[in-house]
This record gives sequence, C-alpha cells and structure tokens, in this order.
Amino acid sequence: MNQDTICAIATAQGGAIGTIRVSGPEAISITSRIFKPARESKSLSEQKPYTLTFGRIYDEEEIIDEVLVSLFRAPHSYTGEDSTEIACHGSSYILQQVMQLLIKHGCRMAQPGEYTQRAFLNGKMDLSQAEAVADLIASTSAATHRLAISQMRGGFSKELTELRNKLLNFTSMIELELDFSEEDVEFADRSALRKLADEIERVISRLVHSFSIGNAIKNGVPVAIIGETNAGKSTLLNVLLNEDKAIVSDIHGTTRDVIEDTINLGGITFRFIDTAGIRETDDTIESLGIERTFQKLDQAEIVLWMIDASEASSQVSQLAGKILPRCVGKHLIAVFNKSDLIETSQCQSIEHLFAQEFPQEHTDLIFISAKQKVQTDELEQKLISAAHLPTVTQNDIIVTNVRHYEALTKALEAIHRVQSGLDSHISGDFLSQDIRECIFFISDIAGEVTNDMVLQNIFEHFCIGK
Amino acid sequence: MNQDTICAIATAQGGAIGTIRVSGPEAISITSRIFKPARESKSLSEQKPYTLTFGRIYDEEEIIDEVLVSLFRAPHSYTGEDSTEIACHGSSYILQQVMQLLIKHGCRMAQPGEYTQRAFLNGKMDLSQAEAVADLIASTSAATHRLAISQMRGGFSKELTELRNKLLNFTSMIELELDFSEEDVEFADRSALRKLADEIERVISRLVHSFSIGNAIKNGVPVAIIGETNAGKSTLLNVLLNEDKAIVSDIHGTTRDVIEDTINLGGITFRFIDTAGIRETDDTIESLGIERTFQKLDQAEIVLWMIDASEASSQVSQLAGKILPRCVGKHLIAVFNKSDLIETSQCQSIEHLFAQEFPQEHTDLIFISAKQKVQTDELEQKLISAAHLPTVTQNDIIVTNVRHYEALTKALEAIHRVQSGLDSHISGDFLSQDIRECIFFISDIAGEVTNDMVLQNIFEHFCIGK
Repeated sequence: MNQDTICAIATAQGGAIGTIRVSGPEAISITSRIFKPARESKSLSEQKPYTLTFGRIYDEEEIIDEVLVSLFRAPHSYTGEDSTEIACHGSSYILQQVMQLLIKHGCRMAQPGEYTQRAFLNGKMDLSQAEAVADLIASTSAATHRLAISQMRGGFSKELTELRNKLLNFTSMIELELDFSEEDVEFADRSALRKLADEIERVISRLVHSFSIGNAIKNGVPVAIIGETNAGKSTLLNVLLNEDKAIVSDIHGTTRDVIEDTINLGGITFRFIDTAGIRETDDTIESLGIERTFQKLDQAEIVLWMIDASEASSQVSQLAGKILPRCVGKHLIAVFNKSDLIETSQCQSIEHLFAQEFPQEHTDLIFISAKQKVQTDELEQKLISAAHLPTVTQNDIIVTNVRHYEALTKALEAIHRVQSGLDSHISGDFLSQDIRECIFFISDIAGEVTNDMVLQNIFEHFCIGK
Repeated sequence: MNQDTICAIATAQGGAIGTIRVSGPEAISITSRIFKPARESKSLSEQKPYTLTFGRIYDEEEIIDEVLVSLFRAPHSYTGEDSTEIACHGSSYILQQVMQLLIKHGCRMAQPGEYTQRAFLNGKMDLSQAEAVADLIASTSAATHRLAISQMRGGFSKELTELRNKLLNFTSMIELELDFSEEDVEFADRSALRKLADEIERVISRLVHSFSIGNAIKNGVPVAIIGETNAGKSTLLNVLLNEDKAIVSDIHGTTRDVIEDTINLGGITFRFIDTAGIRETDDTIESLGIERTFQKLDQAEIVLWMIDASEASSQVSQLAGKILPRCVGKHLIAVFNKSDLIETSQCQSIEHLFAQEFPQEHTDLIFISAKQKVQTDELEQKLISAAHLPTVTQNDIIVTNVRHYEALTKALEAIHRVQSGLDSHISGDFLSQDIRECIFFISDIAGEVTNDMVLQNIFEHFCIGK
C-alpha cells in the first residue's frame, strides 16, 4: 500500500539523545548508504532484526555523528515494515543534517501520525488501538493513562468484536429466513431473537453511557458557574484556579467570554465554565454571552448557582424558574456568596428559602465568601463528592473518544429500531437492514469500513514521528 | 569507582518517543524487575548485548507502557558499564512513572553529564573528548559541528599525546644527567635540546593561537560598537539584528546595559557588543557603563566606531586619542552615520579627515544611514571580510575550550622558561622542573591529573541524561 520510505525526528528538540525513525521498503538500504558500522566486517543490512549497531553517519567524507542504529524487519516492527531507528546526539543541527541525508538518499519526510497509520494499514492494530496511541502520549494522569492502555491493549476492540459476532449471528438467522421467504418458515425463534437484541442493546448502551465517565476523565467533569451579574462568579473561579484568568471588576457584566479552565481536585479533573452573568440587558454582545451561558448549562454535569447572600430572595425568585428546570439530572450546588456581609438570622431565612424553592435530591447548599476565601475548601469537597467518578482499572472498557461515542450512539439507534421492529413483527429484510447498519457503525470504530478522509482526520492530530 | 546504578530521561519533553537510560552494575537486573518481554520464553538478562527486546513495563499488576529495551554489557557501552535504554511512548506521565519505578527498585537519579563522566572515569574517552560531547550537542552550525567532531574523534588528544611524549623524551634526557650530576656529564646535547624545545614551543604556540579562531567559531567574532552618545549605535545594532533588542530613543545616553547578541552573516557568527555612549557625564550608573565600554573594546576583534557624520570632525578629534590606541591589532571600521543628512562636500572633507587621522592598515571607512538602512548591506560585507575566518575541516586541530586554552597558555609559559633556561645554561634540575610543569598542564587537558572539583565543574554544564 505504501511504496515509499518515510523518515522523521521522533523526539522533541533539546535532549541529550535525538531519535530518527525510518520506515518502508528501502529503510535498511537507505540507512546503510549513510551509515558505516564501527566494526566494518559486517554491514548494517547483514545484521539480524532487533539488534543495535554502533557506527557513524557520513555525508560523503564528513562525519555527521556517532550513532546507534536499531534494525527491524517486516512484519516484526511497529509499522509492520522494514524499519531503522537512528539514535543521535541531541543537537538539532545534527538531526537536521541526518534528515537531509536520508531525504537526499530517497526518503520522504513523514506526515504526523504516519507511522501509526502504517501500523494500522498493515494490520498491526485496529483503528481504536491506533487512536489509543495518541491518547497514551497525551496522558497526564493515572486515570487517562489507564484508559489509553486499556484501549491500546485491545480491551475495547475485543468488546466490539464480540458485539459484532453476536450481530452477525443474529443477521445470519434472519437472512436465512429471507432465502426461504416463499416457504414462510421461521428459523429464528422470535423470542430468542428479542432476547439477543436486548442483550446487544444492553452492551452498546453501557458503552454509550460509559462515555460520560470517559469524557469526564479525559476532558474533566464539566462544571458551570451561573448566577446574576456581580454575584462573584469570576472571583470564585479565580480562587479555585489559584490564578487571575478571569477579569474581575465591580462593573456589572464584566465577563463576556466563556472561559474554560481545568483544575485537579482530589485526583478528579474539573473543567470549569465561567459564564456571562444573567441579567436583562440591551447590550447585544452581552446578550450573546447569556445565550451561551444557557447552552453551557446543558453540557454541565455539576451546576454552581452563585447567589449574592445579601440579595438572596430576590435573586432566587428571579432566576429559579429559568435555572431549576435546566438542572434536572445534574448536581446543583446553591452557593450563597458574600456570606460575611449578612447576619445569622439572614442565613436562617436563606436556609428556609432553599428548603422551599429547591429540589431535594442532588442539591446542596453552602455559604461562602469567595473574596475572603471562607468555606471555599468545603465547596471543593462538595464538588469532589458531586463528581462521584468511579475508580477505573486497566480492565474497564470505557469510551473516551467522541468518534467512538458517535458511532456507538448510531449503533444504539439502529438496535432500538431492531427491538421495536421485532415487537411490531416487521419483515425480516427490514430487520436485517437495521442490523447491518448497527454492524457498520461498530466496524467503523475498528476502522474496517472507515474512509480515507476520516483516517486523515484522525492521524493529522498525531505528533510527527509517531 | 561508581558502585551505584543511575537513571535519567535522555530525551526532551514532548516528542513521540522518550528514552530513559540506565547505567551501572545493577542496570540489567533492575530493568528486568519492571520489564516483561513480550516473548516470555527469554528474560531480559538472558539477551545478548546490542539487542532490542519488545515488552511491557509493569508497576505490580498495572501496565505502564509498551516499550523497546536496548541492552549493553560492560565494557562495550557508552559508559563502559552494564546499561539499558528504555524507549517509551513520549508522555511525560509515563516517563515519570518509569523513572519512579527504577528509583523504587534501586536506581539513583543521574546528575547532569554523569553518563559521560562515567565514560571518562571508565577510560572510554579522555576529558577533552568528553567535553567535545557537550560541544557536539550544543553545535548549531557546520563549523562548530566540525570542531566538536574533530575533538570527539580524538584529533586533539592525539596532538596532545605526541606533545607529551616529546616532552617526556626531553625530560628523561635531562634527568638522566641529574642521576650522574656528580660526574658532570652532558648526555643531552644542548643544541639538540634547544631544537626540540623550539619545536614543542611551535606546536603549543600554534594551538594557543588557534583559540582565537576556535573561540570566534564557537562564540562568534566579537564586534564592539562604540562612539559618542546618540551617534546611532543602538539603531545600527537593531538593523543588523533585525529586531528591537536595544532600546532606541533620542535621549542622550539611553543604552546603559551591555547587550550582547549574535548574528550569522555569510556563515560567520558575529557577537555584537552594544555599549554605553562615550560622553563626559556626572551620572554614576552611566559612568560604569562607559568603563565597561572600554573593557569590551579590549575583547573585540572588530571595532565599529560610529560617528555622527554631521559632527564628524568634533567627534573624531574628541575621541581619536582614546579609541585609536586601543584598536591596535584589531580591525577598525569607521562608520559615518546619518550620511543622508550631509552634503557631498562634507563627505569629501570627512574622507580627508579619515586619511589624516586614522591608521592606514586594518582600517575601513563607510558612510551609512542606519535609520534609512542605506549602505547597511555594504557594512555587513565589510564585517565579513574583516572577520577573515579560515574554513575549518574535521582534520583541523583547533582549541575551542577556555579550559584547554588556559592550560596551554600555562604550558607555553613553562616552555618559554625552558627555552630561556637553555640559553642561560641553568642547571638540569631547574629545566626539569619547568618541563614537568609543562607536562602537567598538557595532561590536565586530557584529564589525567585533573581534580574532582574541575571535573564537577565540567560535567555540571552537561544536560541530564548525557
């Protein structure tokens, strides 16, 4: 499929060692042309695979560097092709010189992710495993690392293969009936099929739902901070982030851009969404900001409703009707800010207001002073318990990739059609069509039916040299 | 000498691949404890040297990464010790995890340059070769690269060894006489000794003088820009550097700090020294700056004397007495700036002034307008021809290292004492002492007599992992 030989610097600039990867049918012969082993008795191309050879890279008579060359032969390499890796001294001048030499002798500069793409195209891994390689390189925490390792090891692929085999079994029974359609036989017991469809639905459904966990681990638990202008939302965000990302001022409606930032609390990543204050306004730019506030609210799993404690009853009565219906299924924390400015009696009436106006489940109340940093640690604790992420292991199958999530969602829709089709006794050919669609979307995840544009889109986000 | 096993990340953060080096008596056994080969039939410690093994790094039951491990056995490794190199996915999380595992199992985090230091201590290279490794990693041009390669290959060491052997031969003849001193014999023909001393002096002298070339190649040809305040020195520097490093204003005496910057013109690196303007002043801070100006002038090889063309005769008469005596042996370029503001007749009188007041050799005149970028390309050409650096090859022995230069300078002083001692017929034991001193300084370069503090000072400037 790939007839040319590619090369790339696979290490970042500035270390003690720099590694250049060469892969393709000419990898060993091109490397041999610029490399002289220190022991001249044996040329590089005579070396066994999985060996290292010490020697020098030459440009004609001039020594470029003393290097170690690793040698791999197809199909036993990362890409499945003949490959070499040249470990040079980490000077960017040297690495550039070696790259130029390789290109002069017939290599092409590799595209981002092209090694992994070749590994996929040569059948060394499926597409979801290839995608896990990029996730692994980008992993920054134990949880993201575990999910990437699990996916790269093929746990996810195995789950999908099992699912697909069940669906193939299902469809073969249906299609056998179609072959004998004139005889009106029913090879497949409809109640057995319904059971199988239910089981498949359960598995896909579990995978689809695991995305909320996978996404929260990978990108952070989305937390929206909403409330009236000047309730102290940006101040709170600054306290949580320990930096001055959001602009704080006493002018109403300062925050116009939706700023996102992540923090790690108790091992959980939270993705904070700071929003424009909610307020009747004639300012069109700010109105747009407020619209985004409500959009962001829908994406949040946890909502912090900031209320100015000194104006609690008016703010709650103004916004409860707008905010509470949008918080169904989310965890809502009512944060009464500026509590240092109110009396104990006012606190009690706020608690009374809370008990009356707010839903009882998945709702918390806290008094804080963001400015004085009073009770903000307690608020962090409430966030951690509201996140209730499970501890993942390397054996958990959790969807973290939006592409996989979308394919599985479409597969789930298809299997739902199968279920209702069975209930309403539709004909086998319609059932078969829905099952085929379900199989298509599942195969798409492993890259079996994926088109070139999707592949390009996946691999262009890799780094060079991987 | 080193009983412990060290580990370090040898690649920069952020690439597709990250490599961890392990070296020391326990390198292979510690790596084995955290690494499981993919083919379980053969453990890592059973592998042959110069082989690669694919497998996984484990922390107890948890997979940390899929890696390739390179294996080397003493003395056939970079350090001369048992060593492994673990090529991981380039995630800083993964690299940190693997480092922690290695340390947990008995490794110590390596100091900067500790691998090369061990290579030196284990006799894999001499000290000048070890220093060349750092130069090689830092090389940014063909010339610096060539000098580092030449030194690493041992060209310099070979030159020093030959020199030392000659000196040893010399001293053995002298010392033989001392053994028979009571008999007043002269084994060593004094005229033959004098010839040998002259030859040795020539070689050391050549090496010492090569430092001005070596240093110019490594650190850039030093160019001082001097002149009265507001003559346009900073503006010219900005034009040459193509950026706004120096602050330019119309206030006299703006530039107080000595700013150094390098540019590459025609393959030659120039190190520019921008200086405070020369002017009688009561401002103490600025007076300090002016003092530095004259110090920097002494270090320069090329001096650009910026003169405001509209005030040429007064500026030349005021400063010629101070500047010209300091420019002996340097290349002086008289740069008449703001030439767009003067008439042709004024140009002619300036040329006349130049012919009268300036020395004839190694002196140039140019009219420019730094602000309008008129004739600045021509000034660059004058700089290039004034630098007259030879083209170096990998076979040239050129001193680039200040430590070597200082040792050679002391060796030269000693050999000069030997020469004059021979002329004045001093006794053999005094001669012998000077020769021994000369040998000492030459041996210091190769690291044969170097103390721990010097070694520490050399290696702490290496990067981690080298």
